[in-house]
Amino acid sequence: MQLTKDGKLKHFLTIEGLPPLLLEEILDRAQQFISLPNKSQVQAPILRGKTVMNLFFENSTRTRTTFELAAKRLSADLINLDIRNSATTKGESLLDTIRTIEAMGCDMFVVRHSSSGAAHFIARYCAPHISVLNAGDGRHAHPTQAMLDMLTIRQHKGDFTPLKVAIVGDIKHSRVARSQIHALTTLCAGEIRLVAPKTLMPFGIEDMGVNVYNDIEEGIKGVDVIIMLRLQHERMNTALLPSVREYYARYGLTEERLSLAKADAIVMHPGPVNRGVEIDSRVADGPQSVILQQVSNGIAVRMAVMSMVIGSHAQGTGDANVS
Amino acid sequence: MQLTKDGKLKHFLTIEGLPPLLLEEILDRAQQFISLPNKSQVQAPILRGKTVMNLFFENSTRTRTTFELAAKRLSADLINLDIRNSATTKGESLLDTIRTIEAMGCDMFVVRHSSSGAAHFIARYCAPHISVLNAGDGRHAHPTQAMLDMLTIRQHKGDFTPLKVAIVGDIKHSRVARSQIHALTTLCAGEIRLVAPKTLMPFGIEDMGVNVYNDIEEGIKGVDVIIMLRLQHERMNTALLPSVREYYARYGLTEERLSLAKADAIVMHPGPVNRGVEIDSRVADGPQSVILQQVSNGIAVRMAVMSMVIGSHAQGTGDANVS
Amino acid sequence: MQLTKDGKLKHFLTIEGLPPLLLEEILDRAQQFISLPNKSQVQAPILRGKTVMNLFFENSTRTRTTFELAAKRLSADLINLDIRNSATTKGESLLDTIRTIEAMGCDMFVVRHSSSGAAHFIARYCAPHISVLNAGDGRHAHPTQAMLDMLTIRQHKGDFTPLKVAIVGDIKHSRVARSQIHALTTLCAGEIRLVAPKTLMPFGIEDMGVNVYNDIEEGIKGVDVIIMLRLQHERMNTALLPSVREYYARYGLTEERLSLAKADAIVMHPGPVNRGVEIDSRVADGPQSVILQQVSNGIAVRMAVMSMVIGSHAQGTGDANVS
Repeated sequence: MQLTKDGKLKHFLTIEGLPPLLLEEILDRAQQFISLPNKSQVQAPILRGKTVMNLFFENSTRTRTTFELAAKRLSADLINLDIRNSATTKGESLLDTIRTIEAMGCDMFVVRHSSSGAAHFIARYCAPHISVLNAGDGRHAHPTQAMLDMLTIRQHKGDFTPLKVAIVGDIKHSRVARSQIHALTTLCAGEIRLVAPKTLMPFGIEDMGVNVYNDIEEGIKGVDVIIMLRLQHERMNTALLPSVREYYARYGLTEERLSLAKADAIVMHPGPVNRGVEIDSRVADGPQSVILQQVSNGIAVRMAVMSMVIGSHAQGTGDANVS
Repeated sequence: MQLTKDGKLKHFLTIEGLPPLLLEEILDRAQQFISLPNKSQVQAPILRGKTVMNLFFENSTRTRTTFELAAKRLSADLINLDIRNSATTKGESLLDTIRTIEAMGCDMFVVRHSSSGAAHFIARYCAPHISVLNAGDGRHAHPTQAMLDMLTIRQHKGDFTPLKVAIVGDIKHSRVARSQIHALTTLCAGEIRLVAPKTLMPFGIEDMGVNVYNDIEEGIKGVDVIIMLRLQHERMNTALLPSVREYYARYGLTEERLSLAKADAIVMHPGPVNRGVEIDSRVADGPQSVILQQVSNGIAVRMAVMSMVIGSHAQGTGDANVS
Repeated sequence: MQLTKDGKLKHFLTIEGLPPLLLEEILDRAQQFISLPNKSQVQAPILRGKTVMNLFFENSTRTRTTFELAAKRLSADLINLDIRNSATTKGESLLDTIRTIEAMGCDMFVVRHSSSGAAHFIARYCAPHISVLNAGDGRHAHPTQAMLDMLTIRQHKGDFTPLKVAIVGDIKHSRVARSQIHALTTLCAGEIRLVAPKTLMPFGIEDMGVNVYNDIEEGIKGVDVIIMLRLQHERMNTALLPSVREYYARYGLTEERLSLAKADAIVMHPGPVNRGVEIDSRVADGPQSVILQQVSNGIAVRMAVMSMVIGSHAQGTGDANVS
C-alpha cells in the first residue's frame, strides 16, 4: 500500500515492510540535503506549486514545525489546518473532513493523530493523487522520527550490521520505539536491545527479534548506540511507574552508566528531554550526545520523504513537473 | 460602491445589484483557473508582492483555508490575523483595528464577521487602495459561496434560463440562501423555489420573485437543482424547530424524495453536511451529489474574484504591475 | 555584544550603547524601503532562503504581524512558533527550547518575552550564526518601536538637535519609553521631557539627562513632538492610579492642551490607543496625529533591521548570498 506498482514510495505510513534499499534512498537523499554548502542553495523548487496540508489532530508544535520547514524549503504551499479548533469538523466524520480538504486541491497530507491506524485509514480512502505522511499515530508508528534516528546513527557509525543498539524507556507506549525497531531490523543492525521496567515492556516483544533487559546496566553494556525514549508526563503518576525519582534511580542515563557502553557510543533522545528523569543533564549536554543533530536531521529526512513521494506522483500520473 | 467608475469590480460584498456580465466574468475566470492542465501552472503571479489579510472576526477554518489557498496560488503574501485572540483589539474599535492593519500596507481584506454589514462598513471606511471581500457577514451575504454554487450549476447545466432551482432548509437565518437568490435572479434562472418550515421562512420573501413551499415533496418536484442548506446546531433545540428527528422526517433529502426531482437533477450543500439531519448519506455520497465539486470550485471562484479586484487597482491607480 | 568585530549590527536587543551612525543607517535603509515607488518592487529577495522564527512568549498579534510582514516582504520563510501553547515547551527550559529551534536551521529569532533580559539571554547562548531581534522584553526595551518613532520624527522634523520631545504617560512600566530615551539621546535630540504622575515616574530617571514634569501643561509647552504612551489595562485599577477618569482629566491629551505645544508639533502613540484615556479622539484623528504613519514605518524599520543583521552574517561567515 505504501508503494506504487513500480516500487516508488507513495505514502510513508510505517517502516514495517519497506525494502532496505528504499530506507537507504531516504537516508541518501536526506544526506544530500544536509551536505549542500548552505541552506540558500538547498531551497529547491521540488514542491513548487504543490500544496501540503498539516493535519494535526493531536498537538505537536515541534513536529508540525519541522514538517512546515521541510515543505517551505522545497517551495511548497503549506497550510496548517487548525483542525482541533475547527467548530465544524467536530461534528463531521474523519472521512468527510478528508474529502473536503482534498477537494480544495492538495498533494500531500501530513497526519498526526492519537489513534493508531489513522494515517493508514486516510491513505486508504483519500484521492489517489494524494500522498500521506504519518507524523505519529497513537502507539503505532512515527516513521520519520525513526528515519532521522537512522540517519544520525549512520552519520556516526556508518554500517549498521556490526552495531549494538539499546532502546531505553517506555517501550510499551512508544510509537517511536516500534518504528525504530522496524528500521534497525530492516537495515540489519547487529543487535537490538530493549531496556525497560517490566510494566513498560510490551508482552511478547521478543518475537520481533530483539533482546529484552529489565536492568539498564546490563542492557547498555558494550553498545554502540543508546536511544533514550521520552517518558510521557501522563504516565508518570500511574500504577505503571513507582515515582519519577525511582524511575531515574533505576533507568536514568547517568555518566556512570554511560561508561558501561562503548567508549564512542552515541546517546540519542527524540526530545524534548526531561532532564533528571530519563537522563542526567551532563549526559544530555555531553560529548556523546547527538540530540540536537537529530533535530537537524529531522528536517532533512522530511524533505527527503516529501521529495520521494512527489516523485512517485510524476511517475504515476505524468502531470507533475518535478525537476 | 462595489464597482469603480469604469465598472470594474473593486469590492465583493454582495451579489445584489451586480450586473449579469460581471457575474459571468467571475464564472469564466474561475473556469479558466480550473481548466488549466494542472495546478503547478495555475500558480500565477497575479498577486505577487500583494498582501492579503484574512480578518476572521468569526471563526471558520474551512472558509479561511479556501481564501488562504486562493491567495497563495496567486502568489500573494497572506496573513491570518488572529483577530479573535488579540488582546489589544478587544478594547479597540473596529475602525481603529482596520486603520492600523491598513497602515501595515495591504491590498485586500477578506472579512468574516457575525454582524450583517461589517464588510460594507469596512469597505466604506478603509483606504481607497484596498479591496474588501466579504467571506460572510451575519445573516446578510456570502457572495463567494453563492458564486461557487453558480459555477457548479453552470458546469452541469449550462444555461440558467430554463432551470428550476430549489433551496431547502433554514432560509431565514441563511446568508448563503440570500446570496444564492440574488445570483440566480441576476443570472435569470427560470424558477427559484424556497422550501422550509414556516418558522424558518423569512416573512415577505415572495417579493424577491421566488416561489415558497412548506412541503419538500412539492418543492423539489421536477427541479434541475436542489440546494440543501446547513442546519446550524445552535438552531436545533429552539422553539423554531421541533426536533432533529422530526426535521429530518419532514425536510431531509432522502433517495425517495430525490426521485421526485428531474432524473438528472444535481444535489448541492455548502458543507459541512449534517448526515441524517438535512440529508441522507446515500444522497450526499450518491451519483447526483456535487458537494465536493463545490469545494473545489470555491478555490477557483476566490482566485477569480481576487484577480479581478486587483485588476481594478491597476486601472484605478496605475501603480500595480498586474499581468 | 550587538555588533560584530567590524561594527556591523549582529543582534538588535537595545538602543543603549549603539553608535549614532548605526541608528542613522537603520533610518536611511527604512526610508529607502518606504520611498520605493510601490510595494511590489520593495519585495526584495534579501532574505530568500533564510528562516525567521517568531518566538512570542508573550502575545502580541500586532507586533508579531509587523515582523511577519517585514520578513515576507524580504522573501524569508517565516515560522510563527506557537510557543505559548506548546505542551512540550512548558516543561522545557528556555535554553532547551532555543537549542532545539536553532537545530531546525534558522537565521533569525524575533523574541518577545515578559521577562526583561530574555532577548539578551537568547542572543548570548544561541548559535553564533543566528541573529536575535528584540520585539519587547519585560520593562526593559523595545528597540524597533523606538526606531520607528525616530523615523516618524525625522520624516516630519529632519534634524533632531533642535527638537524638544515630550514623552507622556506611564514611563515607569514602559519599555517603549526607555528605548525612546536612548534613541533620542543617541541622536542628540535637543531636550527630552518626561511627563507622568509621580507614581508612574521611575525614581532617579533624571540621571538619563531628561527633564521631569508632573504637570502635562508645563511638560508639553513649546515642544515639537509629543509621544503619548499606552496605559496598560492591568495598571488602571491599582494604587498607582486614581481612576481612568481622573487620569484623563490630569494627563489626557486634549485639543486645548495640544495648543500649548508648537503649532506644528506632531502627536505620536505606539497604539492601540485608549481613546478618552490617554488621548482625546479629536487629537488622535486630528491633523497633527502621525499615529498611523508610525504603523507603516514599523514595517520599514523592521525590514531595515532584518536586512542589516543578515548583512552582518555575510560579512562574518562568508556563506550567505545576500544581494
